[in-house]
Amino acid sequence: MIDTKTPFDALLSLHSDKIESFMLAMIDQTIIDERSVLIDAIRHSLLNGGKRIRPILAIAANSLFSKDVDSILPLACSLEIIHTYSLIHDDLPSMDNDDFRRGKPTCHVKFGEDIAILAGDTLNTLAFEILSTHLTAFSDRAVLDVIKMIAKNMGVAGLVGGQVLDIKSSNKLLNLEHLNNLHQKKTGALIQLAITSPAYLHEVDTSIINDLRLFGFHLGLLFQIIDDILDVVGEKSQLGKSPGKDQELNKLTYPGIMSLDECRRIAKEEKNKALACLDNLQEQYNYNTKELLAILDFTYNRSY
Amino acid sequence: MIDTKTPFDALLSLHSDKIESFMLAMIDQTIIDERSVLIDAIRHSLLNGGKRIRPILAIAANSLFSKDVDSILPLACSLEIIHTYSLIHDDLPSMDNDDFRRGKPTCHVKFGEDIAILAGDTLNTLAFEILSTHLTAFSDRAVLDVIKMIAKNMGVAGLVGGQVLDIKSSNKLLNLEHLNNLHQKKTGALIQLAITSPAYLHEVDTSIINDLRLFGFHLGLLFQIIDDILDVVGEKSQLGKSPGKDQELNKLTYPGIMSLDECRRIAKEEKNKALACLDNLQEQYNYNTKELLAILDFTYNRSY
Repeated sequence: MIDTKTPFDALLSLHSDKIESFMLAMIDQTIIDERSVLIDAIRHSLLNGGKRIRPILAIAANSLFSKDVDSILPLACSLEIIHTYSLIHDDLPSMDNDDFRRGKPTCHVKFGEDIAILAGDTLNTLAFEILSTHLTAFSDRAVLDVIKMIAKNMGVAGLVGGQVLDIKSSNKLLNLEHLNNLHQKKTGALIQLAITSPAYLHEVDTSIINDLRLFGFHLGLLFQIIDDILDVVGEKSQLGKSPGKDQELNKLTYPGIMSLDECRRIAKEEKNKALACLDNLQEQYNYNTKELLAILDFTYNRSY
Repeated sequence: MIDTKTPFDALLSLHSDKIESFMLAMIDQTIIDERSVLIDAIRHSLLNGGKRIRPILAIAANSLFSKDVDSILPLACSLEIIHTYSLIHDDLPSMDNDDFRRGKPTCHVKFGEDIAILAGDTLNTLAFEILSTHLTAFSDRAVLDVIKMIAKNMGVAGLVGGQVLDIKSSNKLLNLEHLNNLHQKKTGALIQLAITSPAYLHEVDTSIINDLRLFGFHLGLLFQIIDDILDVVGEKSQLGKSPGKDQELNKLTYPGIMSLDECRRIAKEEKNKALACLDNLQEQYNYNTKELLAILDFTYNRSY
């Protein structure tokens, strides 16, 4: 299935073993009482063949400052763990009520709603355990700053706030500004964290962090626009879920407020803005942005 | 309503303004979009007139090392915030399905299941934001250690694991050991954290932390035994919920596996063991354990 010809696939095959092994080690608890169902539920949702965009992004952003992948893995995997917790809760019957994800039954379908809620809760907490325990290559001050930033971006101002906007804004007429705001919080926050956190850990200049934040902002929007386009024009085999689901749920999407051509035009704009940030990082600070560029290209070119 | 004659009530009136103000400040966000419902739900559940046992415990444990209450408030309130998140999720229809708490509708009854899940998620994350941001009186290393310890004790090995044992062990015959294990995780973990975390922050000797941990262990069990007894013999006005709820749900309780007299005997044993820890702290290290003693007495004497 994997086309090893693209730079993104090369990145993925280079790092995915480390990512999967680290996450497995973090949840590898042998429990022989009733709690084993919780571990099973966590494994089911975390080790599900996801593309690991967020960890790969964190590793790519780290590559600007260091060749050492191992030291950044705890951050990279914590972001994937947070992403997984949010997916488990988003899929619940009282939220998006999704029965399948990546062609497999969702956590609550397989393990019950109670265990799915608790599996999400556990993963949420596990991320902070990993961040506070395993980022040993960096200063305590920098680690605390990153924990603070991640926690802040998962709350009302970020991930959860975005989900509230998403479920409470359905069926309303909207404009592009509102949609950008929603996605900046719901998917953009974690993508931006993946890109900026390594810079915080390496304690680089604010101006560099700002360039990375702007890159993350545009990449996050691009990611969501392409996702929305694919939900309209994609094939089930390619999406891992039924296409047209957004429309069925009356979700707020880019194709819901503009033509597909218009969506593609905005996607191209976001891509170019993201590219300009990378160019700046390369020209002004002489950073090698090749890994981040591979991810940008992959995101933009996801078959649409 | 408050009897100011007991030392516990004196402690409570001394500190409760600070606790309430700090928590209010942490959730005091003016949001004028769809997310305001999330803030309303959080306020509803967090500012509900709870007894604030966990913050008071943390402040009391801190009093062994310092008279400064303000510096420990972020820890004290984070534990209450975690406790509130766990109550919101425990009350959900797929878990304990409770409609009332402290005589008020539970979060999901008032705001819907989706918002209740997200309010719990937000509070879970908020605790880590507060811990990583506001414990500025202590070393970064000590703060990271406390974050690690709290996160670890909220996961499979602690709070959430205990809840799984609770919901999955119903309708089974059990022994005292299993019941102690369940409660040590479900309620004991946070109580023990409230008592040991200040010692970690002040970076005192391990032997002192061990005494405090043992005190917390016995206090936690005592707390749960008394709760279970009150569910059988208490009045609705006193409990803030209908008595007999445990039996109705077929919950695992101490009175479910032994007579009330036997429960009272075990409660007394736990109280004496906790007392022995305090005596040791006073005699060996010359600590003033008066505030912790007031809480132990309050816990033991809760009208049964």
